[in-house]
Amino acid sequence: MDTQDLTRMLHVKNDKNKSKIVMLVADGLGGLPVTPGGPTELEAAKTPNLDALAARGVSGLSIPIKPGITPGSGPGHLGLFGYDPLKFLIGRGVLEATGIGFHVGPDDVAIRCNFCTLDAEGNIADRRAGRIPSEESGPLAKMLGEKVKIPGVELFVEPVKEHRFAVVFRAKGLGAKVDDTDPQTTGVPPLAPVAHDEPSRKTATIAQEFYNQAVKLLAGQPKANGLTMRGFAVKPHIPTYEEVYGVRAAAIAVYPMYKGLAKLVGMDVIGTATTLDEEIDVLAKAWNDYDFFFLHFKYTDSRGEDGDFDAKVKMIEQFDAVLPRVTALKPDVLIVTGDHSTPAVLAGHSWHPVPTLLVAEHCRADACKTFGETAAICGGLGQFEAIHLMPLALANAGRLEKFGA
Amino acid sequence: MDTQDLTRMLHVKNDKNKSKIVMLVADGLGGLPVTPGGPTELEAAKTPNLDALAARGVSGLSIPIKPGITPGSGPGHLGLFGYDPLKFLIGRGVLEATGIGFHVGPDDVAIRCNFCTLDAEGNIADRRAGRIPSEESGPLAKMLGEKVKIPGVELFVEPVKEHRFAVVFRAKGLGAKVDDTDPQTTGVPPLAPVAHDEPSRKTATIAQEFYNQAVKLLAGQPKANGLTMRGFAVKPHIPTYEEVYGVRAAAIAVYPMYKGLAKLVGMDVIGTATTLDEEIDVLAKAWNDYDFFFLHFKYTDSRGEDGDFDAKVKMIEQFDAVLPRVTALKPDVLIVTGDHSTPAVLAGHSWHPVPTLLVAEHCRADACKTFGETAAICGGLGQFEAIHLMPLALANAGRLEKFGA
Repeated sequence: MDTQDLTRMLHVKNDKNKSKIVMLVADGLGGLPVTPGGPTELEAAKTPNLDALAARGVSGLSIPIKPGITPGSGPGHLGLFGYDPLKFLIGRGVLEATGIGFHVGPDDVAIRCNFCTLDAEGNIADRRAGRIPSEESGPLAKMLGEKVKIPGVELFVEPVKEHRFAVVFRAKGLGAKVDDTDPQTTGVPPLAPVAHDEPSRKTATIAQEFYNQAVKLLAGQPKANGLTMRGFAVKPHIPTYEEVYGVRAAAIAVYPMYKGLAKLVGMDVIGTATTLDEEIDVLAKAWNDYDFFFLHFKYTDSRGEDGDFDAKVKMIEQFDAVLPRVTALKPDVLIVTGDHSTPAVLAGHSWHPVPTLLVAEHCRADACKTFGETAAICGGLGQFEAIHLMPLALANAGRLEKFGA
Repeated sequence: MDTQDLTRMLHVKNDKNKSKIVMLVADGLGGLPVTPGGPTELEAAKTPNLDALAARGVSGLSIPIKPGITPGSGPGHLGLFGYDPLKFLIGRGVLEATGIGFHVGPDDVAIRCNFCTLDAEGNIADRRAGRIPSEESGPLAKMLGEKVKIPGVELFVEPVKEHRFAVVFRAKGLGAKVDDTDPQTTGVPPLAPVAHDEPSRKTATIAQEFYNQAVKLLAGQPKANGLTMRGFAVKPHIPTYEEVYGVRAAAIAVYPMYKGLAKLVGMDVIGTATTLDEEIDVLAKAWNDYDFFFLHFKYTDSRGEDGDFDAKVKMIEQFDAVLPRVTALKPDVLIVTGDHSTPAVLAGHSWHPVPTLLVAEHCRADACKTFGETAAICGGLGQFEAIHLMPLALANAGRLEKFGA
């Protein structure tokens, strides 16, 4: 089932303020035991509020994409948002630009760029420009954005972090089938951009011109005197939340990436929170203005990526502690889930299904009394692909008509 | 998800000898109780090794095709191999030829044939030629292969067993939409081959010519003086294991059918084992030469087909007994499953999900302590379509990249 099926199948009752859905996403929530038979991070954490919600609601295990597939943040969130991640492919350039809050438009080609260090012969000496600090690289990116001029092309150069920045070419009819110019090694010069169809040849020509002007402007820089380009991409057409589900949707996140992903599906990104508590403040304040809230908590994933089991446990406990502030708002449907697992023992994303719970008046509560990977196996939601979560949310919110007579 | 999605989705780390996957297929493993509330064959069997693996690993129930669908050996195995059995349809003629080790090529039409007994009027008196023994039928098939000559067609006639043999026509542009010539009854003559499109009319003409020459050559035979043809088929294009999964795959089986199925997906068929113990010998010997091993055990299915509950229990115990020899090889991922259920009470294949277990370092072990149909219901793999088993195996073997950024 994809969103096209959804708009066909789901006869959405578009009643504003009729019911409120909150989807709390603890990034990388699922985990693994450190020793056989031991608890996962979530099972080790003291989570009285999550356990109480599990007792009231229905639990299960969400498969982000398909069994065995480890998702990146892009497809992980698209799945949670109810869009088939295999159909709506977000290219890396668009993801990078989106991640810094750049609104990629229909005539744009977005590219991930790295500053690099070139030696006297023009060969790459350091692919990441000595991990140049953002304070140094940011002004260089802005300078390129101001000084490079390509006739007929609107150009955006946006700092990201350290050696990374994003470039967007805006012009009619640009293709994105252009190979990376990063040779993935040192001692050789950056590759020329190679295109694979006619619209992309236009893009490659622009990219080469951008490169030529940029290296002249960067000449003399001690670290960042060159650049490589990767992940040429155009924005896929994605119908909005309002179009598909008939809800006014708000996104609350701290990191630009998740704000960007929410924007791609037409959510309003609201607030300027920098902590979880501030995110809940934003949620409470906007309560009457939206029907659906996506609230993203990053640090469960971060500590999992660090490989720090105990720190991830603490982040889960921090997440648990704010839940009474959410339930006090009395959402009609409250979902707690993750976009994927990030077990500390793997120090990275994984394919394991994600503990998920849904609380609503008519959710058909199951026998689960705690929230965790093992308990959820016997939960009433079973194991299900994440793409099914939104229809379940809408159904529990009384926002779906019957399908067929 | 099909193999096309897979090759796009699975950014396979093609590291030879990096990790080893063993898939043990006990044919027809799943079963049913004889009396309500009683154990299944697997639950009645003493299986200390399977139970220990279940305790270490993660269990579930594999749905061979779709719920309620009883698979034959072909689709059952294709599903386990990760190929959508609804897309990759292997015609019966190809399956029969493959089953005797005949390598069906792209210009071949393969046909299952039966010797039959014709009476003086040319009507079928016995559809199976009195179950003529292989020692008598084999030479007759070979004789037809040598003596029948059809201009422009390369012809193969291969003995199978008793009254059964296979015929392959090799020529450019042959179709396989030809009806069976077996009237499925006695007292009437074999039907003429009827084609349903232009390429198949060429095949039907060849088939008629083959029939005409064959009955002349068989005239005077006391049992096998006629023949019928069924299951005209061409080989489907199936991408290989190496192409799809980036692994060097070996198949170890005793029966030609399973060797043939493995060959169709590009596995190397290794060894000449005739017993389960010899199969494990082959496995151990080839350990360093392959990344993936499919090992097939036939007799769980055979005794189920016989309707002999106790004999099937014994076969499961025999299977259990060799497992320490497999675990001693320390596979990174060990899977135990079946291609379908063959409950003795039904004396045939059935649609019931198949107990399946997967053991790997990061498999997220569940609470199952025994291996059986009932215990597996609450296993961490849940109920899943068999097609997802290969991605799970590759993920657990550390052979898949992240999907998307």
